[in-house]
Amino acid sequence: MRAALDAALSAAGNDEVPVGAAVVRAGEIIAISANAPRTLHDPTAHAEIRAIRAAAALIGSDRLEDCDLWVTLEPCAMCAGAIAHARIARLYYGAEDPKGGAVAHGPRFFSQSTCHHRPEIYAGIGEEEAAALLKDFFAARR
Amino acid sequence: MRAALDAALSAAGNDEVPVGAAVVRAGEIIAISANAPRTLHDPTAHAEIRAIRAAAALIGSDRLEDCDLWVTLEPCAMCAGAIAHARIARLYYGAEDPKGGAVAHGPRFFSQSTCHHRPEIYAGIGEEEAAALLKDFFAARR
Repeated sequence: MRAALDAALSAAGNDEVPVGAAVVRAGEIIAISANAPRTLHDPTAHAEIRAIRAAAALIGSDRLEDCDLWVTLEPCAMCAGAIAHARIARLYYGAEDPKGGAVAHGPRFFSQSTCHHRPEIYAGIGEEEAAALLKDFFAARR
Repeated sequence: MRAALDAALSAAGNDEVPVGAAVVRAGEIIAISANAPRTLHDPTAHAEIRAIRAAAALIGSDRLEDCDLWVTLEPCAMCAGAIAHARIARLYYGAEDPKGGAVAHGPRFFSQSTCHHRPEIYAGIGEEEAAALLKDFFAARR
């Protein structure tokens, strides 16, 4: 989660909402990404999507069955869907997102009967620092 | 929808689930994509995501506010989330997807209070041909 938090901090430096993600396989970080939709002109460029795409390209498969995803914020519906498609084994996330989250809030995607794959889920990891990054970012923009 | 159906047919030729999508702006097709997660080693490479990314890159913005998305199958949660992030104006889709769809089934993403943007939605456009493509594809693989 340290690497994901550092990526979140770098996103804030680029005037992007500070969210970071890392994909870990066999104890090794194989992808680290920051949230970057504005910078990249890509509405899908959330930290989780970027990390999953990078890891899949590295492995050479669209399935990341032996990989875990660490992300500083509760994933949205888009990212939760991508996590299921990628068959991520374990999801660790930091801050809750009552407004846009889709794991513990809103569509609660992984609890739907139409969800084809549900990772093990661990919430609140590094939550304090992840939430502080977001709070400071939005406070500075007001 | 003709262009999206042709893209779906090309996906089937690559042994990918036959789904195609097109982004239209001011009556002009600015992106056409086929479903290609296996070919591209990218679990996020659904037709909708690929078309949205291509259109956003072309326009140079992460917002596609004046664009419509045409897709041969009801979008999944990942793609519905991307449609909302991209601020797509109108969504036209073909076949229903009771197993993985997230518009009229499962999480019904656009009906959630946490959904930040809801396009106008038109279902069943070209449904017969889109569904036949999928049925033939899965029948041939059994």
